Amino acid sequence: MTVVLSIPGNEDHATKLGARLATAVITPEVRWFPDGEIYVRIAEDLRGHDAVIVGSLYPAPAEKFLMASFLAATVRDLGAQRVGLVAPYLAFMRQDVQFKPGEGVTSKYFGALVSGAVDWMVTVDPHLHRRAALEEIYTIPTRIAHSASEIAKWVAAEVERPVLVGPDAESVQWVRAVAEACGAPYVILEKTRRGDRDVSITAPQREAIEGKTPVLIDDIVSTGKTMVEATRQLVAAGSSPPMCIAIHAVFADDVHAELTAAGAAGIVTCNTIVHPSNRICVADPIADAAKQLLAR
Amino acid sequence: MTVVLSIPGNEDHATKLGARLATAVITPEVRWFPDGEIYVRIAEDLRGHDAVIVGSLYPAPAEKFLMASFLAATVRDLGAQRVGLVAPYLAFMRQDVQFKPGEGVTSKYFGALVSGAVDWMVTVDPHLHRRAALEEIYTIPTRIAHSASEIAKWVAAEVERPVLVGPDAESVQWVRAVAEACGAPYVILEKTRRGDRDVSITAPQREAIEGKTPVLIDDIVSTGKTMVEATRQLVAAGSSPPMCIAIHAVFADDVHAELTAAGAAGIVTCNTIVHPSNRICVADPIADAAKQLLAR
Repeated sequence: MTVVLSIPGNEDHATKLGARLATAVITPEVRWFPDGEIYVRIAEDLRGHDAVIVGSLYPAPAEKFLMASFLAATVRDLGAQRVGLVAPYLAFMRQDVQFKPGEGVTSKYFGALVSGAVDWMVTVDPHLHRRAALEEIYTIPTRIAHSASEIAKWVAAEVERPVLVGPDAESVQWVRAVAEACGAPYVILEKTRRGDRDVSITAPQREAIEGKTPVLIDDIVSTGKTMVEATRQLVAAGSSPPMCIAIHAVFADDVHAELTAAGAAGIVTCNTIVHPSNRICVADPIADAAKQLLAR
Repeated sequence: MTVVLSIPGNEDHATKLGARLATAVITPEVRWFPDGEIYVRIAEDLRGHDAVIVGSLYPAPAEKFLMASFLAATVRDLGAQRVGLVAPYLAFMRQDVQFKPGEGVTSKYFGALVSGAVDWMVTVDPHLHRRAALEEIYTIPTRIAHSASEIAKWVAAEVERPVLVGPDAESVQWVRAVAEACGAPYVILEKTRRGDRDVSITAPQREAIEGKTPVLIDDIVSTGKTMVEATRQLVAAGSSPPMCIAIHAVFADDVHAELTAAGAAGIVTCNTIVHPSNRICVADPIADAAKQLLAR
């Protein structure tokens, strides 16, 4: 038997995964003591069960990790055999190498913590830039659920004559996959990053966007500066208002207002992080990836 | 060679410990990305060094743990041999058994995480109630730095005809040690806890407090409800305004105003958690405990 448990705020993910795995879904009791410490309780007998803890590690990634870790240890104390983590958004993937001497490679350290807490992990399109695969960072079995098929369905249904646009070289992995899945062309711009909130992006070739609706795709929209600057370049090159799609709606700043001001038609996101902009459901690829690891 | 590194906000602890160990003190670069992820950098060559990371795991205990863990991994990547953690206040000591079926025993889980992150640990008077020793929770070598000698010096210097008062049976460990160190009598009250912010406490015997200044001592003041209720009982029994002492200034609520309203003369704390009420420095017992583990 398998049971699905949610980290607070991820009840919808848990319900959708439970339905696709045809398993029981448990909402653990998680609360805070007045001093900010976490209390967890799961009033179930889990002897012999496989447990799947579901929750994006955002916002408050440190606290979300500790919740996942405490829930995993609790289900083990209650008799569960294997414990998996389904983190639709995986935190601490950003710092994957030393850019300056002495920098902590936090993606590696965080990977070791998660690998010590659970037996396997599923995540949606993690921020793999300078690392080729999660196996370089995580020592437990992992599977990546890809959002491209679901994004392609949304683009095919909602956008006329789309041309997919990647704002930087790193985005080619998502943009190409979506373009192929919906039979549309794509173009990749070039980005230079000078700081957390300071980027410049090249203009697209006019002929690549003429008579089409540009669909900007990036994996994470945090400050939104990349998406805003790419929108500005597209509009300046004479494109119709671009539609923006992000896989992970981190939205650290007020991205929506800035994007609208820059001339975007709108922004939609996958539902890895709960946000009003969620339009694209990735529950199917998540469930497929989880099934593979549960069957091992 | 040994180096001392501070978790942000604990620079004073690091300076005092570095002075007592006659070692270099390093302030690591720790900052947040816009999405709340943590960045750490230590621009030093630490090959062959012993490293001591200093920081109370409060406020934001989950984030403080992750900072300590990332700093420990970074100093190891920089060549450090052994890494110790000096956490003047140790979080997640509260939930040390299951009170109800299915509760996560978070002190055990957190102990396993810390034991995986560093090689040894020092803390000041941890909240050991139902566990007799840190060794039941932590698998790494640990030492407890006791604040009693420093509290006793403060009481002897500042309070005339003191009688030490413990608000509940659990406080006897700190209260007796302080009373013996300053040659004063002590009395222990009885507490019933009905919730995070709901306690009742028995009145003291009038003869135990007559003609004396009560000095209430507890290890943690969080909501302050225990200290406030004990103050009320003392005042109702005819005592002069009690002086309140807490080892760890958690202060989740506005304790000072409530204590004053209840009739307390004031509240002073040890400097394990930085707070305006800090009057009693525990740097000497911390350094003595760290020296024992560094010498192993």
